[in-house]
Amino acid sequence: MLDTAAAKSATAEADAWLEGFARALDQRDADAAASMFGENCYWRDLIAFTWNIRTLEGREAIRDMLAATLETVCPRAWRLSGEATAEHGTVEAWFTFETQAARGEGCLRLRDGKCRTFFTAVSELKGFEERKGPSRPLGVKHRADRDRETWAEARRREQSELGTATQPYCVVIGGGQGGIMLGARLKQLGVPTIILEKNARAGDSWRNRYRSLVLHDPVWYDHLPYIPFPDHWPVFTPKDKMGDWLEMYARVMELDYWTSSACTAAAYDDAKGEWTVEVDRDGERMTLRPKQLVFATGAYGPPRMIDLPGAETFKGEILHSSRYADGSRFRGKACAVIGAASSGHDVSVDLWEAGAKVTMIQRSPTTVVKSDTLMEMGFDTYSEAALARGIDVDRADMLSASVPFALMPEGQKRLYDRIRARDADFYDRLARSGFAIDFGEDETGLLMKALRTGSGYYIDVGASDLIIDGEIEVVSGAGIETLTPGGIVFEDGREIEADAIIACTGYQSMHETVAELVSREVADRVGPCWGLGSGVKGDPGPWKGDPRNMWKPTAQEGLWFHGGNLALSRFYSKFVAMQIKARMERLPTPVYGPRG
Amino acid sequence: MLDTAAAKSATAEADAWLEGFARALDQRDADAAASMFGENCYWRDLIAFTWNIRTLEGREAIRDMLAATLETVCPRAWRLSGEATAEHGTVEAWFTFETQAARGEGCLRLRDGKCRTFFTAVSELKGFEERKGPSRPLGVKHRADRDRETWAEARRREQSELGTATQPYCVVIGGGQGGIMLGARLKQLGVPTIILEKNARAGDSWRNRYRSLVLHDPVWYDHLPYIPFPDHWPVFTPKDKMGDWLEMYARVMELDYWTSSACTAAAYDDAKGEWTVEVDRDGERMTLRPKQLVFATGAYGPPRMIDLPGAETFKGEILHSSRYADGSRFRGKACAVIGAASSGHDVSVDLWEAGAKVTMIQRSPTTVVKSDTLMEMGFDTYSEAALARGIDVDRADMLSASVPFALMPEGQKRLYDRIRARDADFYDRLARSGFAIDFGEDETGLLMKALRTGSGYYIDVGASDLIIDGEIEVVSGAGIETLTPGGIVFEDGREIEADAIIACTGYQSMHETVAELVSREVADRVGPCWGLGSGVKGDPGPWKGDPRNMWKPTAQEGLWFHGGNLALSRFYSKFVAMQIKARMERLPTPVYGPRG
Repeated sequence: MLDTAAAKSATAEADAWLEGFARALDQRDADAAASMFGENCYWRDLIAFTWNIRTLEGREAIRDMLAATLETVCPRAWRLSGEATAEHGTVEAWFTFETQAARGEGCLRLRDGKCRTFFTAVSELKGFEERKGPSRPLGVKHRADRDRETWAEARRREQSELGTATQPYCVVIGGGQGGIMLGARLKQLGVPTIILEKNARAGDSWRNRYRSLVLHDPVWYDHLPYIPFPDHWPVFTPKDKMGDWLEMYARVMELDYWTSSACTAAAYDDAKGEWTVEVDRDGERMTLRPKQLVFATGAYGPPRMIDLPGAETFKGEILHSSRYADGSRFRGKACAVIGAASSGHDVSVDLWEAGAKVTMIQRSPTTVVKSDTLMEMGFDTYSEAALARGIDVDRADMLSASVPFALMPEGQKRLYDRIRARDADFYDRLARSGFAIDFGEDETGLLMKALRTGSGYYIDVGASDLIIDGEIEVVSGAGIETLTPGGIVFEDGREIEADAIIACTGYQSMHETVAELVSREVADRVGPCWGLGSGVKGDPGPWKGDPRNMWKPTAQEGLWFHGGNLALSRFYSKFVAMQIKARMERLPTPVYGPRG
Repeated sequence: MLDTAAAKSATAEADAWLEGFARALDQRDADAAASMFGENCYWRDLIAFTWNIRTLEGREAIRDMLAATLETVCPRAWRLSGEATAEHGTVEAWFTFETQAARGEGCLRLRDGKCRTFFTAVSELKGFEERKGPSRPLGVKHRADRDRETWAEARRREQSELGTATQPYCVVIGGGQGGIMLGARLKQLGVPTIILEKNARAGDSWRNRYRSLVLHDPVWYDHLPYIPFPDHWPVFTPKDKMGDWLEMYARVMELDYWTSSACTAAAYDDAKGEWTVEVDRDGERMTLRPKQLVFATGAYGPPRMIDLPGAETFKGEILHSSRYADGSRFRGKACAVIGAASSGHDVSVDLWEAGAKVTMIQRSPTTVVKSDTLMEMGFDTYSEAALARGIDVDRADMLSASVPFALMPEGQKRLYDRIRARDADFYDRLARSGFAIDFGEDETGLLMKALRTGSGYYIDVGASDLIIDGEIEVVSGAGIETLTPGGIVFEDGREIEADAIIACTGYQSMHETVAELVSREVADRVGPCWGLGSGVKGDPGPWKGDPRNMWKPTAQEGLWFHGGNLALSRFYSKFVAMQIKARMERLPTPVYGPRG
């Protein structure tokens, strides 16, 4: 740990830098401000300067952004919050600041006196702060009133009027974790919102999945905003328990959450600046007219089915993993699982536990990490140890967000070098079973695969041992030649029996859902969701630097994508909500740089 | 605020005292230990030394208790936690300690080097700690397992077996806030428990009350354990919102909570050390056989009806406030509300708001405090300001519990002197309206009335202004001579019209519920609940020093009373749960001093 003198000197350095930077901004001198950055520099902004989610790379990009935004953003009141730290030659300091529209928080990291990474994020919009703590609502008028409307009466009225007598400002399609967390943020900001959930109950998106599903991420990473999981919550939440928590949450957060409600079509009227959203609400056809429409239909879009030659001759059942719920009906049957990423592994285990004979068909190598190892080495900012160091979930989120995506591979590669060394024996045994392992094209492991393509990895919670022990067989490295009535023939001549085929072949991009509900034209204009544009297979360029189309303005006015795992949904829901709130309040929101 | 030197010297003084005290206890020298207390001294113990909830008053009582308990309790490891403080000549320090069975926490207050108040409370039972934070359950076995039982399956099995195939160790009668919080604590300690709730849904005990009811205590005082209210929660929770929270809470805390279930009879078998509890579960008769039976049927027992001479001639409706839900059917009618405490005021306002003509019949003077005043002056340890000082709800609970009940009147009298001065104008106007105000026999105000008799007070949230303005009429200081077919005649000759009479006449002691369900003999042996034995009207002596029969062993083996407002239920549920857990684990639990 640092001694006090070192902390003092780091703080002085950060303070001097920030003061100089603030002076340059005050003088509207974009060149001077940019010159305080090093050669190799990044500024990640979450809607504070850009009303966008952007990472500017290099001095020139930073200068251009400042030149374009300073006059309207009017940044000021830059102040360090707490002491700076210095480690390995990098001074890190957190600060607060204000803009015309907002209060913000950020982080700077200096190397040799120049800024290497700069991070700015809006904390709250001025005049539209959430009412909490000392400004929480009173809950009652302390005066007798013959026109009193009680909480229950007001709530019932809201529920009956919203969507009929009054129109929501925002409609969120999809009431899973993403839609619920965004809905909660919007509620706290006073944005009238309806969440459309096709299932009968909140939480069913988890309950309906396969029997043995348990979250692969640990509890410290999974909290919802406003009501964190209690201290006794298990490290890994079982799916039905998660379902119950979401259902409770939607209720006590007073979301306008329409169950058994599906969006059937949506169209944007440019002249009115309004959507027409057709809804099937439990059999009743309704039309909603929101200004903003959010797709929160899962981080991925519709199920991706692959072409299986000879499928018409196959006598058994072929189903996509999204429709796989319970293995018990496959007891004693030969099951082929196509795909060797997370759902391929989980479904294989579920089938094996149900007493099926399972063959996993691996089409491309998989990044596998043992859960214990990942918990210990990959989740250091989301853990009991982090809590003990004073890093709660909100701090951890800001820490994570402050690192530009472009710099992540470097740290991830080092992490995976250590992971491979630690679990060398495990990887040897798994490879010997015929299972193909990789760590990504640039050896950067699971997180980068998740961010770039959202596929191709598995956090091992038991399946790998079954593969090593031969309990789950693996066919790897051979394409499917054809299905036969009773099995599969591979291109290398191998042949297996199969009574059923479960396609764990992933999902299409969320923009395909837009194609289904809005139009092909709008979907193509908006383009795919997710991915960084790293150029690796499945994540084609050009380089984006931030997840494509997620949580920020898209090429279609009034159209947003929200989602990701629980952690990403938690953190970015805050920024989606503030962007929507700003528009509802007609604040100027000039978007800097490309949309999407 | 203290300077560092003063804090240092206070800490040194507390440290020296605690060291000397520990030495005396190590030497099992009860006399030496007692001699370290001042003339006028108190030791409040929550199950650490006494397996009881007791306040020992005076050196002799302390010496006797130590002489009787030291050998089995084996106290040790006394350590100050943090710095001591010194104010007005009193040094206050918090400490931790251990006993044979438990880890504990406490507080000492010294004056002139001698201890004036000492407080000891069990934090957790050794070997039976709650699993939380770093010791939270994993939630999943990371290994494929053909005998895997998922969380949902295990939960369904537990729910179907408990009460039929397996017997609960504990049954809690009453699923309101008290039963729910106790149930949650027991669940976390692994005590199989069934909670019996007569209503159809958890939370109905709040929902079913009168329309305009809102909690009179503020949110900071009302948190449930494990899942505190979120930061945006209103200061005063509306009843239906509270109902929803309790329902959510019972669900996600995984309580075995039987709705539409009433206990119809219970009997204790001394030989077996077991209860036979007859239950009507939604029409089905069942018998449960727990070892422990907790009455959590509300801080008070059955409704108290008073004798109304001539009631048989009255043509209108007479109902008790517990059955009053909605004023709308009294629109335009003349309503007499008998009683001028909390429910009398709330019902009067509800009726007035519904358009009834209301007369409040005050039988004895009422302690009234304006809500704003009480929030500002009476809730300083449960507030945003306290949170800002680092006093969270758990710390505030310990602070409150550390003050012996015997010393409370002194501070409360000073508080009410200030409150009366501040709101002198309000009290003048209220008195001029004919409403009789008092502050208790010894001028100690609302809290002492609540603790001594649980009646005779009102936190003003609007009714007093209606009384001042004459919108609610008051008849005070005259007994009811007789009801007539259309009204009430008072002893002083006054007469009012009444279409309906609502008796806000309070509740009987909870032990009357025992008389109904168990037997008169057991109820009489156990005696009344609540009250301190202060000798004031409604709280007869002898002096008890702690609420009678609440949260501690009673004269009937295996019979417990739990309840109180949200704050008391929250705090003391922890100790009830640990007492029950200790018995389930067959720890020695010798109860020192009288039961009940």
